[in-house]
Amino acid sequence: MFIAGDAGGTSTRAVAIDRAGNVLGYGRSGGGNPTSAGVAAAVVSIGAAVESAVNRLTADEVEAVAIAVAGEQTEAFTTQLAERLGRLGLRPAVLQPDLLAMFHSGTHRPEGYGMIAGTGSIAARIRDGALHRVVGGKGWLLGDAGSGFWIGHRVARAVVSALDGQGPATALTPLVLKTLGIAAEPARSAVRQLVSALYGRRPVQLAEFAPLAFAAVAAEDPVARQILAEGAAALADLLSTIREPGLTGPVVLGGSVLVRGYLAGPAELRDRLGLPTEEAVVVSDGVVGAAVLALRGAGVVVDERLFEGLRAGVAGVS
Amino acid sequence: MFIAGDAGGTSTRAVAIDRAGNVLGYGRSGGGNPTSAGVAAAVVSIGAAVESAVNRLTADEVEAVAIAVAGEQTEAFTTQLAERLGRLGLRPAVLQPDLLAMFHSGTHRPEGYGMIAGTGSIAARIRDGALHRVVGGKGWLLGDAGSGFWIGHRVARAVVSALDGQGPATALTPLVLKTLGIAAEPARSAVRQLVSALYGRRPVQLAEFAPLAFAAVAAEDPVARQILAEGAAALADLLSTIREPGLTGPVVLGGSVLVRGYLAGPAELRDRLGLPTEEAVVVSDGVVGAAVLALRGAGVVVDERLFEGLRAGVAGVS
Repeated sequence: MFIAGDAGGTSTRAVAIDRAGNVLGYGRSGGGNPTSAGVAAAVVSIGAAVESAVNRLTADEVEAVAIAVAGEQTEAFTTQLAERLGRLGLRPAVLQPDLLAMFHSGTHRPEGYGMIAGTGSIAARIRDGALHRVVGGKGWLLGDAGSGFWIGHRVARAVVSALDGQGPATALTPLVLKTLGIAAEPARSAVRQLVSALYGRRPVQLAEFAPLAFAAVAAEDPVARQILAEGAAALADLLSTIREPGLTGPVVLGGSVLVRGYLAGPAELRDRLGLPTEEAVVVSDGVVGAAVLALRGAGVVVDERLFEGLRAGVAGVS
Repeated sequence: MFIAGDAGGTSTRAVAIDRAGNVLGYGRSGGGNPTSAGVAAAVVSIGAAVESAVNRLTADEVEAVAIAVAGEQTEAFTTQLAERLGRLGLRPAVLQPDLLAMFHSGTHRPEGYGMIAGTGSIAARIRDGALHRVVGGKGWLLGDAGSGFWIGHRVARAVVSALDGQGPATALTPLVLKTLGIAAEPARSAVRQLVSALYGRRPVQLAEFAPLAFAAVAAEDPVARQILAEGAAALADLLSTIREPGLTGPVVLGGSVLVRGYLAGPAELRDRLGLPTEEAVVVSDGVVGAAVLALRGAGVVVDERLFEGLRAGVAGVS
């Protein structure tokens, strides 16, 4: 038996599986990303999800634990997580890059591309079942073009500029003001309150405004359309940086901005990403991929049949 | 007699003048902006500069004190400043917007435009000797397009992107790495150290990289050229927002990015700002303007002759 988990920014999910890919247990808990949630809270979340997944199994039946996590791991995190799993009678987890797990949630093939656009944006070329080249993922200040932060930041600037009389009026203004509970009139007071409210929050929280851009573009707002067109171009550029001739795909896509934003929106945005439909695989998280990595780590050959069974099994419990 | 001062981000200057615009004293001290330096430090700086300017005069000869300061003033600042000036035997200062003082450092005329681009960017239309319409000045996160922060932020992103292999190579890379004392090779280690160093500083400190863009553009770097072209377009847009037909100028320009950057650089950047040379007046600070405002506040008519005398007098002592 194996435990495979995906420790995401808003939730953590774990499954227990056997060598044939049958799903024997499932657990879900809160945010498990040690960078955004903090090490202690992340360890609590991962521990809870794993404990639920183990459930009726006995710990000595578990051969290995694979957990997908974003970013570089600190020693504090690995130590505290090992301690928590040890209390469940489990060995320390093998930590896997979330981008690789996400890729393998979409395919059992060992080669292709993966791109995530949620709060941040990152893409990778995968070869021999490992990350071969990664671009992006440099955070809100220095990178993450086309991401939720990037879009939300532009939304906020466009609204401030519109209220200031510099930029064009936009349907984003009432949406943003309503979100923050600020009265639209008088405009001078609205812009002062808006500026003050936004500087009072962490910059990365601007990502919360990204869904407003997708809502406004659905209502044909030209300012939102421009922001999303530039965001799509940035994501297409990110992907093109790691594309190489002779490696066709698949291209596995994840993250709220891609999945619930761009890919659920008007077709022209999908086209701008330059992805033929037959190549693109959309996934909601990295749980299936973490399971693929756990099995592969134990020498199990994950073929198409095993992979499809695993995917159906995880979909059935989650 | 009057005291007029300009409390800037890096230095504070004050002059003592008489009704005819003769300069009778001068003082200079550290940063006097209560927002960036803190209220207590700003009051110390302003107090020191004013005390030096008063010098051999007796306080009861001083009719009024005018101090130019950026941003909105808190009660703590006005109270502590009044107390400090009171200890010199002076009445509370009349606080003036730095943008208005900067404008009047360039002209005695009561109408025209002023634009500052230093760490931030802001512009105003002036009518009847007062700020009639102000745009910009919304800070690094929400505004300040074309400013030192805006340029420095793009410089940092371009260097991270170049090191990451996504963006084109640029002469900015060695300049930025040298500034931070990071070895250029291996690139993977350089980008990691760079990202870590930049997230460890306050975002607004990215403004320190703006001069590197002007240096790189002088060496024909296309990436720096693109950044500065977009910055110039943003500043031109800021100015055009407040321009109105029938009000021709003058256009008074201040701030390090405009004065030591754009206006000292290649002619094409000056052209992009859309400013005919005959209309543009470049100033280094708001001391002369604070003196104009002090005199005007006391009912003195500041004509061209008095203004030119004042300007020559301040230039002579500072």
